[in-house]
Amino acid sequence: MKRKRIPQTTIARLPLYLRYLLKLARKGLRIISSYELAEHVGTNAAQLRKDLSYLGEFGTRGVGYDVAELIRQISKCLGLTKEWKIAIVGMGKLGPALLGYKGFEQEGFKIVAIFDKNPKKIGKKMGNLVVSDVTNLKEVIEKVGGVDIGIITTPASVAQKVANQLIDAGVRAILNFAPVTLGVPSNVVLRQVDLTTELQILSFHLT
Amino acid sequence: MKRKRIPQTTIARLPLYLRYLLKLARKGLRIISSYELAEHVGTNAAQLRKDLSYLGEFGTRGVGYDVAELIRQISKCLGLTKEWKIAIVGMGKLGPALLGYKGFEQEGFKIVAIFDKNPKKIGKKMGNLVVSDVTNLKEVIEKVGGVDIGIITTPASVAQKVANQLIDAGVRAILNFAPVTLGVPSNVVLRQVDLTTELQILSFHLT
Repeated sequence: MKRKRIPQTTIARLPLYLRYLLKLARKGLRIISSYELAEHVGTNAAQLRKDLSYLGEFGTRGVGYDVAELIRQISKCLGLTKEWKIAIVGMGKLGPALLGYKGFEQEGFKIVAIFDKNPKKIGKKMGNLVVSDVTNLKEVIEKVGGVDIGIITTPASVAQKVANQLIDAGVRAILNFAPVTLGVPSNVVLRQVDLTTELQILSFHLT
Repeated sequence: MKRKRIPQTTIARLPLYLRYLLKLARKGLRIISSYELAEHVGTNAAQLRKDLSYLGEFGTRGVGYDVAELIRQISKCLGLTKEWKIAIVGMGKLGPALLGYKGFEQEGFKIVAIFDKNPKKIGKKMGNLVVSDVTNLKEVIEKVGGVDIGIITTPASVAQKVANQLIDAGVRAILNFAPVTLGVPSNVVLRQVDLTTELQILSFHLT
């Protein structure tokens, strides 16, 4: 599998295919047509076949895809066969909401450390974790044996500093919710979820 | 301005330009170069000039852009000169976190109604609002004089039903956080924020 050549848009659709396939598997379905699978993620059968072609050869025309095999291949491609360790920095409103989100652990993402700079929050228990002082971020991350993904839910003003600390602690993937564009070195992957921007894009379409 | 012809990728960048321009304006800066503005949103000067060309003619080569004028034009294009009314459906963990997010109101997005189906939550005060029964969604939305944008923070299993209710109540834009692909008619704009998918895209890049 030549991973480098998979387009970003395909990568973004793979989790959506997977989610629907898992739903089918839970219902006991074993075969799905490209048409049905494509429709459920809002694409078309030709695009689906192209997306899956990056993973190898699947499906028989007129027969459909083997659900279990497709789940296995997509999971492997997305790196979901191992557990990823996550740290959340910023225990304001969004941080605890993400900490309580059951979907993450179900999908193999385990939150192992949470941070804040507020002395009133440091040492407080949230879920199964205790809030650590962000000043000690590197030490805490080392103590838990490293973290794969850092989630930033701080105010915009400190987000870049936190990103730098995470990178310094060996974190190679960041999901940023702070409303600011972060700079990261090329060996770090960054995704941005900007809630106000999402609303502004909607308001453009409403105008 | 031929609005229809503005590419999606440009629309997605306009809020990022705006955010940085507002920051500059607060600092009292009046002029910005295309290079600096582009760099701060992670694009290049040529793309920036192309993006802004959809809004009309701006800037003088070698002089830069007038910050105030650019703020005015981007805000107008994004429909940010009016206040948009928002309803949030699903007061689990994420709903209250969004309700408490100060960034929305600052940008002209006002949450006017919140819903849940849990009898323990209905009637409870959260922020300045009281949780309404989702069964009465249409009536409540009519009572507040209509809603522009609906935010769905329910479990996946009921998200489509909630989307249908919102659309039936006249809502024309939906921001969906439930991990499921929704179907909406072509006159409704839908944006999806899928937290697990974001992590899976990161895990792909880490693999």
